[in-house]
Amino acid sequence: MKTSSLLLATTRETPADAVVISHQLMLRAGLIRPLAGGLYTWLPLGVRVLRKVEAIVREEMNRSGAQELLMPVVQPLELWEESGRAEDYGPELLRFKDRHQRDFALGPTHEEIITDLVRKEIRSYKQLPANFYQIQTKFRDEIRPRFGVMRSREFIMKDAYSFHMDRDSLQTTYDEMYDAYNRIFSRIGLDFRPVQADTGSIGGDGSHEFHVLADSGEDDIAFSTESDFAANVELAEALEPRGERPAPSEDLTKVATPGKHSIEEVCDFLQVKKKKVLKTLIVKGATDENPVVALVVRGDHELNEIKAEKLDLVAEPLEMASDAEILDAVGCNAGSIGPVGLNIPVIVDRTADHAVDFICGANEDGFHYTGANWDRNANPTLVADIRNVVKGDPSPCGKGKIEIRRGIEVGHIFQLGNKYSKALNATVLNENSRAQVLEMGCYGIGVTRVVAAAIEQNHDDKGIIWPEAIAPFQVCIVPMQMHKSPRVAEAANKLYDELTAKGIEVLFDDRSERPGVMFNDMELIGIPHRIVIGERGLDNGMIEYKHRTDEKAQDIAEAEFMDFLLAKLNA
Amino acid sequence: MKTSSLLLATTRETPADAVVISHQLMLRAGLIRPLAGGLYTWLPLGVRVLRKVEAIVREEMNRSGAQELLMPVVQPLELWEESGRAEDYGPELLRFKDRHQRDFALGPTHEEIITDLVRKEIRSYKQLPANFYQIQTKFRDEIRPRFGVMRSREFIMKDAYSFHMDRDSLQTTYDEMYDAYNRIFSRIGLDFRPVQADTGSIGGDGSHEFHVLADSGEDDIAFSTESDFAANVELAEALEPRGERPAPSEDLTKVATPGKHSIEEVCDFLQVKKKKVLKTLIVKGATDENPVVALVVRGDHELNEIKAEKLDLVAEPLEMASDAEILDAVGCNAGSIGPVGLNIPVIVDRTADHAVDFICGANEDGFHYTGANWDRNANPTLVADIRNVVKGDPSPCGKGKIEIRRGIEVGHIFQLGNKYSKALNATVLNENSRAQVLEMGCYGIGVTRVVAAAIEQNHDDKGIIWPEAIAPFQVCIVPMQMHKSPRVAEAANKLYDELTAKGIEVLFDDRSERPGVMFNDMELIGIPHRIVIGERGLDNGMIEYKHRTDEKAQDIAEAEFMDFLLAKLNA
Repeated sequence: MKTSSLLLATTRETPADAVVISHQLMLRAGLIRPLAGGLYTWLPLGVRVLRKVEAIVREEMNRSGAQELLMPVVQPLELWEESGRAEDYGPELLRFKDRHQRDFALGPTHEEIITDLVRKEIRSYKQLPANFYQIQTKFRDEIRPRFGVMRSREFIMKDAYSFHMDRDSLQTTYDEMYDAYNRIFSRIGLDFRPVQADTGSIGGDGSHEFHVLADSGEDDIAFSTESDFAANVELAEALEPRGERPAPSEDLTKVATPGKHSIEEVCDFLQVKKKKVLKTLIVKGATDENPVVALVVRGDHELNEIKAEKLDLVAEPLEMASDAEILDAVGCNAGSIGPVGLNIPVIVDRTADHAVDFICGANEDGFHYTGANWDRNANPTLVADIRNVVKGDPSPCGKGKIEIRRGIEVGHIFQLGNKYSKALNATVLNENSRAQVLEMGCYGIGVTRVVAAAIEQNHDDKGIIWPEAIAPFQVCIVPMQMHKSPRVAEAANKLYDELTAKGIEVLFDDRSERPGVMFNDMELIGIPHRIVIGERGLDNGMIEYKHRTDEKAQDIAEAEFMDFLLAKLNA
Repeated sequence: MKTSSLLLATTRETPADAVVISHQLMLRAGLIRPLAGGLYTWLPLGVRVLRKVEAIVREEMNRSGAQELLMPVVQPLELWEESGRAEDYGPELLRFKDRHQRDFALGPTHEEIITDLVRKEIRSYKQLPANFYQIQTKFRDEIRPRFGVMRSREFIMKDAYSFHMDRDSLQTTYDEMYDAYNRIFSRIGLDFRPVQADTGSIGGDGSHEFHVLADSGEDDIAFSTESDFAANVELAEALEPRGERPAPSEDLTKVATPGKHSIEEVCDFLQVKKKKVLKTLIVKGATDENPVVALVVRGDHELNEIKAEKLDLVAEPLEMASDAEILDAVGCNAGSIGPVGLNIPVIVDRTADHAVDFICGANEDGFHYTGANWDRNANPTLVADIRNVVKGDPSPCGKGKIEIRRGIEVGHIFQLGNKYSKALNATVLNENSRAQVLEMGCYGIGVTRVVAAAIEQNHDDKGIIWPEAIAPFQVCIVPMQMHKSPRVAEAANKLYDELTAKGIEVLFDDRSERPGVMFNDMELIGIPHRIVIGERGLDNGMIEYKHRTDEKAQDIAEAEFMDFLLAKLNA
């Protein structure tokens, strides 16, 4: 394609309201334009990328045996009432009435619709398992849409839903989706990790998020330096430290710490490292018998609320005790609490349980203990994993250490169990001709989001650096002063025709712009391979080549150029 | 694909509420399922067809130089207010408020959105002409959605919008779209006609509808037996009859026709053919001077309201005079009116103007004239084309005669002029650096509708007969008693693998159903090429082949079968 027949809507200015780099670059490179809050038009350059992502997703979904279908964007609200989600979903579900005053909603997801279809169409276990997917427009009325297409209101999802007679079958399809997702993101060319995610009440291996690693990601991902293990930081297990706890070597001593409440203040005051201090938090208990409970973690660690609230003694959701409750139960204010002499349940983190000669609050305002030791001075009610993993922790998989990086969630696979099939009474006859509620899995990819995530991961100060598989064009040809040099025009057009005839997607910059403008635009829009044709090169029988990531351009002899370029393209 | 991994949702019963054949067959063949009024889920078999139509449309739009983009389904209402259509469009524009109480609508079309984009992004005449298209979900809140996806509320359109500095450029792109549409519907394999359509105030060659010819069509299409000419019946010109009007041979005679009002009654009573009688209709005039006007057409012809209301003397829109107005102006009631002695303007159809010795009302209740003649007995104020063409009329193109068939509109190309660009002030700088309002064209294809229209045109009492290019599968393999015969299973699987490896889309019916059930299903879903493999054939070294349109199956020697099939597929 020639730039003269493409809406190349590049801009130099960074739009003021675009905070994240992908949003800035998508606007600057002319991939998208805002229509209204959280609504974007995809310009021709953007659509080319979008369609490539869609094509890879579709191919791999088909390869996995999933069947494509297409459900309406507009959904009758009564199905959401049947599943109970009409209430739960809140105002993100945009509701409206049609001209006959019937209630509808714009679909943010399609569990209800597909379950309704399956309960009507699938009668026998012989038709199962089945996995249905669509690539389709969704709408979620975000209260504060932001980050461009990363968190827009209208977006494109690939959503799939599988149906099964039993958990084993669900697990098999789930594993196939896991593999398909790995193939999809690998083919797109992203550095990503499948990450164990919270399964809620399902447990087990039932949920993975797929994260594109990028510094700007919203989520912290913990992964092993030596294995495939990866999990949301909140979900990664902090293993029990190896070996025995060392014997105490200090005496318990009460020291005055006037006005020192935070770990930092205490460490500063006593000139010790954070790991020497134990932090005690008072939270609400699960029973009337124990209205409050103490949680103890090392001063350099963070409490993991998800882990803590799963414990029987702790109220779920986790809630901090009020100042009054703390004073009532402990006899001092927060900032001076410690496990020594506490008469409420004390839950101690596994690593904190290995601390020796530690410092902690003395349960008396303005005082701490030094040289405190477990068993000798305090007894845990329970030792458990209640902290976030940190960099350098041993990986829970048993291999390597924990590394933490930020990720952008672009996919999610989830074993739903029978949540929707039960609510909508989706049953089929099993081998004994008895109606059986179906098991379900669901599998999403944020197609529009993938494009933004790819940019978050692949850019520099000049613009986007597209992975080859989803670049809007593979190659760009930038002729120098073509409108003044028939020779350059001829050579450039000839090469364009040759490359195009080989099925290579070439963007030919035929504008009469200054070379600098053309170079900047081609770098901004991130075309992987750049070819420059100019008088000087032609004089020497050379064509200039530069990969988007190369520092410098190189001159290649005309006769060898095609082989050279094809080798680059196949690399 | 094997039927065991496809949701094959065929049914024998014809759904009661499905009136048209395409709706019936799409339900019965399991291409679609209703979700709510005018909302359909496309099942896997249907999506395969839909995607093929989309792919052809996309390829030909790209080939024409149009650029694909993607605009949101949800549109801010303020743009519709700016264009003035928020009011005009009525309740088919589904409006709603988002959570912040801002007004939005579900897009039934995107003129406003694209014009808003272009006014912001295109600054110079150098960037024009440009033609943008999308393939996207639309919503039109039809008061009575019907005929399945033929007139559904949610549907998929390919809509394109072109922008130009002048009419010539618009005409060039319009012509390119005309050609692209011809290629699209030809490639899909439909019998269609580009049909001249009403251009409203634009005039000229500015609007064509593309109709798939089918007996069930909603529109009457007039076309030439000997040229490409085709037009909506309402728009085809009825030429002036050739030659001179013959001389009168009868005397004017007033005859009693008691109680005979309609043309049929008068013809029956006087024992003459309809063409012998002239029909006089009184309609409202355009001016106070002539509050009513008489329109005269032959008894076997129909008044064409569009043609009549374009005349200066006639009020637009056309409105019949009331009984009181008729009595007041003519002195008799409708049913006895005629041009003889009328003292209001008399507009006579060209063909009626050639009538000789004709019969007409005598402007006296219960009486008609016979032997009436123009000039001698009555004088037309104006002779004009005010009737619909009928079969056998000379074609207005000058070649052949008019043939009339019914059509289903699947595409429409239209020169919009500056209607939207003016309303939204979409200007660009011209060569003299002056702001100039853009010219626009728009070009639609009802993608989902094309699927239904293809079925309306191609079916028999057994089911759908897909055109090869959009068939969900090209070939089906039906093995006989495969689950009892390992030999049949092996041969069928081998052939399936061979064909699939060649990139042929094969549906392998691996269900353990009776042959009759499998045959019926494959015919219902309309797979073009059917292969049967059974014990008896294998004994004789034969494979059975039948095209969906063949009367009988034929046995082909195994060794020759592949060549035979490939020849059929390439035919």
